[in-house]
Amino acid sequence: MSQHAVMIDQFLQTHLERYVEETVRLCAQPSISAHGGDEMHECAALVAETLRAHGLETHIIPTPTFPIVVGKAQGASPRTLLFYNHYDVQPVDPLELWTTPPFEPQIRDGKLFARGAKDDKGELVARLAALDAVRAAHGGRLPCGVTFVVEGEEEVGSPNIRQFVLDHLELLKCDGAVWEEGNIDSEGHPGDFLGCRGVAYVELHVRTLKMDAHSGSAHALPNAAWRLVQALASLKDADERVLIPGFYDHVRPPSKRDLELIDALPSYEKFARQHFGVQRFVHGALGKAIEYNVFQPTCNICGLKSGYQDDGSKTVIPATAMAKVDFRLVPDQDPNDILAKLRAYLDAQGFGDVEVVKIEESMWPYKAEADHPLLDLSARMGEEVYGKPSLFEALAGGSSPVYAFAKPLGNIPVISPGVGYWANRTHSPDEHIRIGDFHNAARHIARILDGFADL
Amino acid sequence: MSQHAVMIDQFLQTHLERYVEETVRLCAQPSISAHGGDEMHECAALVAETLRAHGLETHIIPTPTFPIVVGKAQGASPRTLLFYNHYDVQPVDPLELWTTPPFEPQIRDGKLFARGAKDDKGELVARLAALDAVRAAHGGRLPCGVTFVVEGEEEVGSPNIRQFVLDHLELLKCDGAVWEEGNIDSEGHPGDFLGCRGVAYVELHVRTLKMDAHSGSAHALPNAAWRLVQALASLKDADERVLIPGFYDHVRPPSKRDLELIDALPSYEKFARQHFGVQRFVHGALGKAIEYNVFQPTCNICGLKSGYQDDGSKTVIPATAMAKVDFRLVPDQDPNDILAKLRAYLDAQGFGDVEVVKIEESMWPYKAEADHPLLDLSARMGEEVYGKPSLFEALAGGSSPVYAFAKPLGNIPVISPGVGYWANRTHSPDEHIRIGDFHNAARHIARILDGFADL
Repeated sequence: MSQHAVMIDQFLQTHLERYVEETVRLCAQPSISAHGGDEMHECAALVAETLRAHGLETHIIPTPTFPIVVGKAQGASPRTLLFYNHYDVQPVDPLELWTTPPFEPQIRDGKLFARGAKDDKGELVARLAALDAVRAAHGGRLPCGVTFVVEGEEEVGSPNIRQFVLDHLELLKCDGAVWEEGNIDSEGHPGDFLGCRGVAYVELHVRTLKMDAHSGSAHALPNAAWRLVQALASLKDADERVLIPGFYDHVRPPSKRDLELIDALPSYEKFARQHFGVQRFVHGALGKAIEYNVFQPTCNICGLKSGYQDDGSKTVIPATAMAKVDFRLVPDQDPNDILAKLRAYLDAQGFGDVEVVKIEESMWPYKAEADHPLLDLSARMGEEVYGKPSLFEALAGGSSPVYAFAKPLGNIPVISPGVGYWANRTHSPDEHIRIGDFHNAARHIARILDGFADL
Repeated sequence: MSQHAVMIDQFLQTHLERYVEETVRLCAQPSISAHGGDEMHECAALVAETLRAHGLETHIIPTPTFPIVVGKAQGASPRTLLFYNHYDVQPVDPLELWTTPPFEPQIRDGKLFARGAKDDKGELVARLAALDAVRAAHGGRLPCGVTFVVEGEEEVGSPNIRQFVLDHLELLKCDGAVWEEGNIDSEGHPGDFLGCRGVAYVELHVRTLKMDAHSGSAHALPNAAWRLVQALASLKDADERVLIPGFYDHVRPPSKRDLELIDALPSYEKFARQHFGVQRFVHGALGKAIEYNVFQPTCNICGLKSGYQDDGSKTVIPATAMAKVDFRLVPDQDPNDILAKLRAYLDAQGFGDVEVVKIEESMWPYKAEADHPLLDLSARMGEEVYGKPSLFEALAGGSSPVYAFAKPLGNIPVISPGVGYWANRTHSPDEHIRIGDFHNAARHIARILDGFADL
């Protein structure tokens, strides 16, 4: 372990409590982007004040909705590491399932409970702690430059981040980035990912009648629910292969290295059988084939709604029917291309009456290569802190606006060390972090800052 | 017009307001059988009180769920006419589409708006008005006996009526019956029907996971909504032909006379295009072919429910999905046979995991022949009241427990004069009757009572 690492660990050991308190302060400020309002602007101001308190020059940059906060500091090296985080949080319902109120942070059994404790306020403060620690280890000066970007709309699909990056390429210029969050798995391995999938989210709407009708006329009057079922059924074959022509055109198959990375991960099959009670996986896959399928794009029904849904019977021909559908996209698919192909296919199949409404900004997939020295640095420092080798997810199943930064900023490498573990209850009641994980994440990130100038 | 008819018309002209008020009183009492509870028993008591007020001897006969109210009176002739009605109503959602609350009856523009105004409380009161009128025309004594049967479960499939009739053959002995409701068409013709379709109502349930999952795992975890969509889609071809083997085995084709009766009806196509805004009818039918299809059984989706249904996006793999499906059956299909074939087909198609739950007692189809004198009386009196000849529906599209009475009581003839017109919004928001129709129905039924003894 280097002399700097020793000094980093000493600093964080001494000052840990201060950073936990800083996290509590941020978590006590509500900031639900789905609801909006003054609380979002209050939280942005609090984030800016917090960044300033850690020696960063701050900018509060307005967007059509909630501002993006940027904090910058120079370092001894001209090389700069960018940190992406967000100050907004998910809604808190069902409120009755929280042990203590979501915006009244509480420490119990070495864990800090609050909405945002993990996602993403705890992550942000762990990084600021790392900044202070590495500065202390370098006699008060940062070894490299840092840029913090903290947005307020990650939980509602980051509709403004792409344009923001394009408008501020000079301000955001960097040599690598630390993504919003990270986790250790159930065996204590720290994790990183090389990229994540894109997403396009739409609603399908059908109306066949001006109003619902009595089902005694079902031999005559067209049923919106049937129409929707037939349109949806036309999208996939029995094995869940998507039938939209050209859907798979730009799918880049996984590399040999990608499959090796997946092989090194603990079994998802075992976890999913226990946690979700799965009997049969999609495509009938077993073992590692289940995980390889992350390189397959998906067409997923998030919700169905039509006609009568309450208890008992109502004999009705529904006039309207609605499905929410998301497509998770893999490199090099383009969400705009996919949505155009969906429309064309429905039209060609005679479903011109099925309306497609985009209800969320799309995200593009992004995947880095596995051989960048920043990934190697993150893995080595991860092993030093956690005593276990880092595991790399070749492609995360979910979506995140990595693409909005990585490509325009010159295909920079992206890593994701963080404060999480396998049971943080992110997006759920009783969201929390373990203080020990928070401490280790700061140690890990400080080491990365310490080594970044010399890569 | 007979002297009796003149007296009947005078009586009803004088007392119309009183019967409208009686309808208002009944409609103000909620009685949604699908929800159940005390309101059902309160409504049964109110119906019994109402029948007593019209000089009937009443019986409140318990069933395993809601009581059946029977009212009886002797007449000069031993011949007895049975009236079948029901005091239960359909659910009221979507509540926001009602102009005024469903259980706060309101008169606007000569119409009475309330849940149950048409189906079936207005029908019941029009018959009681006719009873009073014919009694007045006969110097205080009824010319024939009457039996009123008012049940509380018609809207949930009359699960107890079949056994009730079998258990009370002596009490219900009669020479003909007036069914629950009737309508005049858009050209003012009164109508009757020779029979109606049966019905089987089920829910299909799918569960693929212990709990909903993040849609980032859609490449691995099975989606209940997809499974349900695929199972439903397997039930019909693109032209809505039901694919369950043997589904059409016992379908009796319409007779020449049936088609002639349909040909004599005004155009349903024209009505449906205007009223429901229909673009394309089921099976692509046009003109009379639309109506001939009432002799085709149907498989209809009444409701769909799965996953996230609120505004905006939630990226989720639904763990459960549900569809409500009703089958309208024609002579000589048997609902038990159809449900057994549905189960066998789903199993054969690999949908053994799709649970089929019967949530309502089935009804059998029933169809009488067209040559009984009661049908002729109803038609002649209809022409006298409405100035237009009666039209006979060979087979009503909906279902009604006619089969439960007509067969066990000796293949009695059944007629259906009533208070409806072509736009009552039965089962829908803003259900209503026109006061003028209510008045005419009472005039029509009183004339039938007047002539029934002499058939």
